[in-house]
Amino acid sequence: MPRIGVVLSGCGYLDGAEVHEAVFTLANLDKAGADIVIMAPDMEQMHVVNHITGQPQEGEKRNVLVEAARIARGNIRNIAEVKGDDIDALMFPGGFGAAKNLSDFAVKGDKATVHPEVARLVREVHQAGKWITAVCIAPVIVAKVLEESGVKNAKLTLGAESEFADKLRGMGAEHVECPVKEARVDTRNRVITSPAFMYEARFSEVAAGVELAVKNLMAAVAGQPVPV
Amino acid sequence: MPRIGVVLSGCGYLDGAEVHEAVFTLANLDKAGADIVIMAPDMEQMHVVNHITGQPQEGEKRNVLVEAARIARGNIRNIAEVKGDDIDALMFPGGFGAAKNLSDFAVKGDKATVHPEVARLVREVHQAGKWITAVCIAPVIVAKVLEESGVKNAKLTLGAESEFADKLRGMGAEHVECPVKEARVDTRNRVITSPAFMYEARFSEVAAGVELAVKNLMAAVAGQPVPV
Repeated sequence: MPRIGVVLSGCGYLDGAEVHEAVFTLANLDKAGADIVIMAPDMEQMHVVNHITGQPQEGEKRNVLVEAARIARGNIRNIAEVKGDDIDALMFPGGFGAAKNLSDFAVKGDKATVHPEVARLVREVHQAGKWITAVCIAPVIVAKVLEESGVKNAKLTLGAESEFADKLRGMGAEHVECPVKEARVDTRNRVITSPAFMYEARFSEVAAGVELAVKNLMAAVAGQPVPV
Repeated sequence: MPRIGVVLSGCGYLDGAEVHEAVFTLANLDKAGADIVIMAPDMEQMHVVNHITGQPQEGEKRNVLVEAARIARGNIRNIAEVKGDDIDALMFPGGFGAAKNLSDFAVKGDKATVHPEVARLVREVHQAGKWITAVCIAPVIVAKVLEESGVKNAKLTLGAESEFADKLRGMGAEHVECPVKEARVDTRNRVITSPAFMYEARFSEVAAGVELAVKNLMAAVAGQPVPV
């Protein structure tokens, strides 16, 4: 029973984890027989966004780990307590929380800093030869950590060509265009990515993309070939 | 393209909508070709619960409609503005928000009051001969509105036998035991229910139960036979 770490970044796509991507990630991993280790950093969110107006709710504070527990149904660990040895692979659903809490990519673009415990776990998993899957905007985290590890030209998706893709290239990675219902595999660096809500996509399209990303990850973890 | 109303009650199972049930509801409706009308009441939550400790966060206030927008990705309406004529069927994912915000069942049991706009919409839909689907704890809302409409012995699920089932009977309904991956159909009253996280269930089991509930609902809306 492979142990798959899932990193959440809050609860709600404008300031935390994208709820649908997170739920599809967990349901598909569970269906595939994974032992899921859900985690998030214990930190204050960059801000709290009203998801109707799209505007920050001034003066309000929320904690990433506590809000992520809404998706995890309380079964969640502080990422600082999870070691690379504890898991067989690592997966990041998306949502702006990946670019606002797990990193500051939303503010600093390709000069972003990744949360130190997130960066540590990505490094430990990558250096141990294990696989990482990242959905939506979360590939920017992988790009930054790989750049800092001296890895060049990792093949990652962020949907269609965009300013985000430019910033991905600014971190030394290669942007691979990918439709919403598909995923792409970087076999050399053991990274699987899928764009999900990088598109103005339908719920069922994102469901299909995340399902495929999880399927590829579980195949890779089992030592089976994955489509490139 | 049938228009299916989905009523959310916040975001997080301890004080709002159960995130997984809501996401599976939306994804399966979308996959089946529904035009989804997501809605919630514009009201303050009964309380805000820390989903790690399970304890209320004293002094904190959140709005049901604004929090539900985290699941709806902003595309959500105030239920007060939705008429029965606007939709072809109505569906309620669960979560304690159904028993704390959409009704006060969590406090008052079978003496509960349903939020007036929620009760109005359920009545309008039911009296127009349209179908209603309710997941997890949400069947208690249907039971109370039907009781007040003089309907006896509606067949509804709340999982295994429990004190909740007793309270359902206290509202004049019949409790039908149902495993997590299944759903039950009350053809006479046009109600489909599935227990979901009324059990300590796995994510993928809840996914299967909600998928079946939606499948039955879409068949019923299309005038096709549904399994009883």
